[in-house]
This record gives sequence, structure tokens and C-alpha cells, in this order.
Amino acid sequence: MLGFTYYTPTKVEFGKGAVEKVGALMKQFGGTRVLIHYGGQSAVRSGVLDRVKKSLDEAGIFHVELGGVVPNPHLAKVREGIELSKANGVDFLLAVGGGSVIDSCKAIAYGLAEPEHDVWELYAGQRKAKACFPVASVLTIAAAGSEMSNSCVITNTDEKRAYDDDLARPRFAIMDPELTMTLPDYQTEAGCADIMMHTMERYFVNSGTMELTDALAEGLLRTVMHNAEVLHTDPHDYDARAEVMWASSLAHNGLTGCGSDGGDWMPHLLEHEMGGMFNVTHGAGLAAVWPSWARYVYKNCLPRFVKYAVDVMAVTPGATDEETALAGIAAMEEFYHRIGMPINFKELGIDPTDEQIAEMAASCARACGGAKGSAKVLHQSDMEAIYKMLK
Amino acid sequence: MLGFTYYTPTKVEFGKGAVEKVGALMKQFGGTRVLIHYGGQSAVRSGVLDRVKKSLDEAGIFHVELGGVVPNPHLAKVREGIELSKANGVDFLLAVGGGSVIDSCKAIAYGLAEPEHDVWELYAGQRKAKACFPVASVLTIAAAGSEMSNSCVITNTDEKRAYDDDLARPRFAIMDPELTMTLPDYQTEAGCADIMMHTMERYFVNSGTMELTDALAEGLLRTVMHNAEVLHTDPHDYDARAEVMWASSLAHNGLTGCGSDGGDWMPHLLEHEMGGMFNVTHGAGLAAVWPSWARYVYKNCLPRFVKYAVDVMAVTPGATDEETALAGIAAMEEFYHRIGMPINFKELGIDPTDEQIAEMAASCARACGGAKGSAKVLHQSDMEAIYKMLK
Repeated sequence: MLGFTYYTPTKVEFGKGAVEKVGALMKQFGGTRVLIHYGGQSAVRSGVLDRVKKSLDEAGIFHVELGGVVPNPHLAKVREGIELSKANGVDFLLAVGGGSVIDSCKAIAYGLAEPEHDVWELYAGQRKAKACFPVASVLTIAAAGSEMSNSCVITNTDEKRAYDDDLARPRFAIMDPELTMTLPDYQTEAGCADIMMHTMERYFVNSGTMELTDALAEGLLRTVMHNAEVLHTDPHDYDARAEVMWASSLAHNGLTGCGSDGGDWMPHLLEHEMGGMFNVTHGAGLAAVWPSWARYVYKNCLPRFVKYAVDVMAVTPGATDEETALAGIAAMEEFYHRIGMPINFKELGIDPTDEQIAEMAASCARACGGAKGSAKVLHQSDMEAIYKMLK
Repeated sequence: MLGFTYYTPTKVEFGKGAVEKVGALMKQFGGTRVLIHYGGQSAVRSGVLDRVKKSLDEAGIFHVELGGVVPNPHLAKVREGIELSKANGVDFLLAVGGGSVIDSCKAIAYGLAEPEHDVWELYAGQRKAKACFPVASVLTIAAAGSEMSNSCVITNTDEKRAYDDDLARPRFAIMDPELTMTLPDYQTEAGCADIMMHTMERYFVNSGTMELTDALAEGLLRTVMHNAEVLHTDPHDYDARAEVMWASSLAHNGLTGCGSDGGDWMPHLLEHEMGGMFNVTHGAGLAAVWPSWARYVYKNCLPRFVKYAVDVMAVTPGATDEETALAGIAAMEEFYHRIGMPINFKELGIDPTDEQIAEMAASCARACGGAKGSAKVLHQSDMEAIYKMLK
């Protein structure tokens, strides 16, 4: 087993009515002037924004608000948040939403902590952060895992870039599964695909053994698969919402990667280009990318693909390991289809030209610093080949 | 799924050579004057104490040391640690050892933070802590899980009492599996029994469903069982040491109890009396108690005992649920025997008189505030009956 660092300081309050604890938690963690950051009107309509403001008011905590964060959150909104926060002496960032809103908060928090620098430099790989303002969230979508993770993804025009740093791990996260009850099915299932991929990225690696981590990862993947199907039929099943919501955090807080080599992450990086260029839903983009990526790399990481097929997809081992691995990939495609997720460009609703594919591959290679991957190291030509398999 | 709070702020540095990071971590977490607390001479002989001191010296951090912590750590040593720390202006407690040493550190840390109060009041249930000095550990035994937990157990003459509070969760934990390579087999396997019981206490409950938590708990239990057997044959298997060490933390940091009702904890409380009166090895005492406890309570928590039998012990379901549950308990006894653990008083090497049993039951009932349990609520007469089953 490889060595690792594990650090998940985020305090989680999970369950019905947890929203009402936001004022007390904010006080406990020292927030006195709060930016409430959110996305569209659903946070207003659902009443969650009012509940948050009421709880902060009762705790005597000043707040301003900034909505309008979109999926694949933009740098422009981050800059707006930084200016608004400066003007109001904000000392704590509170996201009310999902991964996009939390990521936008993290970027604002980086920007506030080092106002002498341009925040995009972090995402462009030009420097490392030395500080970050405190962030917390009231989670309304189970997907990105940003509520406990060190990750943050921001889009600048059509460049979608990630920056990971423990400085941005949220102080607390409020998770009330009831807040996710009214999500459209496509968002729910794309969230499940995203959750699974955060663990799969850490699973398909060429490194030493990790027996406990594998047991946790496989248990998590089976649980999400089961409950994704439950929610596809009955979106109001509270327990299924709860299982998926808790899985979203554990899939991406580091737990399922302990003893791994850090993970592969090429499906994510391939998808980031699609998200940047076509603004597709992140989880759906991941589902679309994965089968082609898997068929391209599986021979280089065969034992893991065999184990996945048997222990996660419950495939009966075939005559050869290759057969078993391919059956596992096919079973995953069937699962994606059962929950309404795409497995290629067409089903995702996009139709990139060869030029656009070449452009995405070039941009992806740049984001990777040339080449990246653990299941298999991919170069620009590999990335282009995988995109072409998605046609 | 029930609501829950999850809070595991401890930063873990895991792997070969992690000991050398203690100076840098101490600096990062603000320790400037450190009490190094340890147990017997093995910490000296193994060289780990010297490695810790060297790393602290290199970071320019002042330290004093206090050894002599024994299993079932005593209040007298805690008081000694408080006085020594006061005299030296200590601001950070560093345990080099296992659960007993970490627990002794936590108690010293409580005592230092509120010097106007007697620290035993916390364990006697007379007040709650309002503050605690920072604690960290260099772990040398995988067992108690105290390196990430909020728990702390101290013995005052023959009263062994627990106090749980998030204030005492360690700031960081250094886990190098190589430090556990030379442990005697009995200690290793007692540690495995302890690790498993921390998760089993949270598993055998009468509360709502918790699918993800169950999957994680069952995966952890199977992993520990497998590696406990590996280590019984080959104590120098690094990967097995690593799996068990990481499991020790995850079994007791709260992860395997999310959505549970808080747990049953009667096997622990029954064992605490045995530890207090006969100074038995904690994990071995737990193994000895569990089968009798299980047979006494299983009918009141039948679905969980059936699930345990099938999903953890790989028992083929019998004609009735009762048959399956009992087969699971028998399989657990066989496992304990395979790793050299006791399943009754005689195998544990003690022979309590009826008067001593009555005394333990009375003391246990007092510690429980009269009655306690989730699988089944136990009163003093139940506790006495279970102790008698162990004869």
C-alpha cells in the first residue's frame, strides 16, 4: 500500500432540517460577514435561501448575496463576487447550491485572501495559493463532492481548469437530502454518474494494493448504482436521496483514494474540454466519455478492470481476463442507459467536428502538461483518438 | 437514514517514514512546547522516540517527555502529566504509542485547558469540557482508533470510565505501519478484535436503514478479518499491517456510524469493568464478551445479526433467521479462535467469583446511568446474566 495524506476537516451536519443549523455553525466557525452565493431562481423558489437568511439573522450575522452562478461556473462571476465581498467586508463565503456554486465560492475565497494577485493564475498553473478565506455550503445537489473536497473548477471563456488545494476545503457542510427532492431526473442521474466517477478515477490506477480502500470504493459504487436506479423510478425516495448525498461527499473527500497513486483523472480532463466548449452537464459528459476511455486503456490496467467487472458490476468472469474486463465495460454502459445517461457524443446531444476534436485534444494536452493518466498515460494523439471513438 | 454529525479534522500522514514529518506537522499545527508522552521501554528500544525527538529538534520545537503509561491508563499518570506540563509551559501533547497513551494525552489536555477543575469530573459524568489543549500522535499500535476519535478512557483505581468530546479529536496522526511490525501476536490480534468491535458497536443497532454505511462497515470488517489472519501467520507482512492500521482509524472516527443511532456500546461497557478489575487486554476482553452478549441480545436485533452473518461472515442462510444469526455468531467464535483470541473468561485467563460478577454488573450499570444498549437495552440483571454466560 502506498503512503498517503488524508485530511477532511469539514464538519458535516446531515439530515432533515439541518439547514436551520447554518447560523449556529457560522458562529462556531467565526463567520461574521457572509457572502451568500447561489445559482438560479430555484434557491429562491424552494425557500432554502430564505431559511438560510433567517438562520443567519437569528445568529446576528451580517450577509449579502450574489446569485447567478451557472453550471461550469465562470471566472467573470468569481470576479464579481470578489468585488462585492471586498465592498462589504465579507469574511466568510457560504455557497447555497451544488458543485458549481461551491467552486465559485472557493475561487472568490482564493481571490479575497490574496487580493494582490489575479485569481486565474491559480487555474492557469502560474502559482500556488498561500491563503484562502473560509468557505462552507448548504448543499442542494448531490454530485460534485466539492462540499468536502479540495477541488475547484472554473471556466474562463472556453477554458475549464481545476485547482486543488487543502486551503479551500470547506469548514462545514449542511446536507439535507430533502433539498434535492425536486431535482429533475437528468440532474439527479448526472450527479450519480459524477459521484461514481470521482471514485472510479481513484480506482483505475497502476499502483500497489489497497484492500480496505477497494472495499470502501466498491461498496460506495454499488450503493450509488442501486440508489441511482431507485431515484430514476421514484425521485422522492428520501433514503435513496440520503445515500446518494452522503456518497457524493465520501466519493471525493479523499477517502476512496487512500493508498492509490493519486488517481487517473483523464475521464475528467477529457470531459472538461467538452464542458468548456459545449457547456454539457458535467456528470452526463463523464458518462459519455467513460466507455470509450475504458476500451482505449483497459489492456494497460487489466487487473483493475477485471476486479471492477466482478466486484462492482457483478459480471461472471469470462474465459479470459480481457473478456471479463470488456463485459464489465459493457455492463457499465447498460447501467448508464438504465438511468438515462449518454454513452457517446450523439446521446449527449453534441456533434463536434474533426477540427473541434483536434482543438479539444490540444487544449486537454495543455491542461495535462503534455500527458497524464495512471490506468494508461495519454498523450494528445491518444486524447484525439478517444474523442473520435465517441462519435 | 437518521441524521448525523460527521467531524474528523485529524490530518493523517500515513506510510513508511512518516515519523520524520512530526516536526513539520507540529510547526504547522502551532505546537511550540511539547510533552512527549509514551508507554514502556519499547518506544525507547525501537528508536521511535529518538526519531520523534530528532524531528522536533530539527523544527526547533522544545520538548519534555513522560513515559510509563500502562494499558488501561491511570488517572495518577494523567495528574503527573498535567503537573509536568504546567511546570514546562507545554502547549501541545504528543502521544507516541497506542490508544492508552493517546487517551492519557487527551486527559492531560483536558486537565491543562481547565486547570481550575479536577479532570476526573469529566469521566465521572459531573460536567462537560469547555476546552482542551491540542493533541496529536505517532501511532505504534493499531487498535483503539483514538488517533482520530473523540473518545478517551481512563481508569481511577478500578473504575474505568470513558469521556467523549470532539474537543479532544487529535490535530494530526502519524501512521507508519512499520512501527507495528514487532508487536507480539497477541497484541496484534487483540488490536484487530478491538478495531472490529468499534464498527460492530455501531452496526448492531435498532434504527433506520444505512446502506452506504453498512457497505463501508462490512467492507472494513472483512478486510480486518482477512488481514488479522495474514498477520497471525506472517507478522511482518507490511501491506497487512497497513490495512489494519488504516482500518483502526476508520473503524472509530465516526465513518462507520453515520446514520446509525449512535451505537450499542454494551460490549465495550461490559469489558471496561473486566479491564478495570482484572486489567485484561482490552481487545481480548472484547472478543471474550462478544459471543455471550450476542447470544443474549440477537433476538431483539435479528435482521442485523442475519445481515452480519451473511454479508460479513459469509454464512449460508439457514432455514430460519434465528438459525442464520446463530451461525454467524458461531462463525465469529471460530474466527476469534483462528487468531488466538478468547471467547470466555477461562480463555481470557480470569476466573471472577459470583461476588465479583455482581460487583462488575453493578459498576457497569452505574457507568450506563442504569441501562443502555441499542441491539437490546440492558439493565444490571442483564449485565450480570451475560457475565455469567462467560463462565
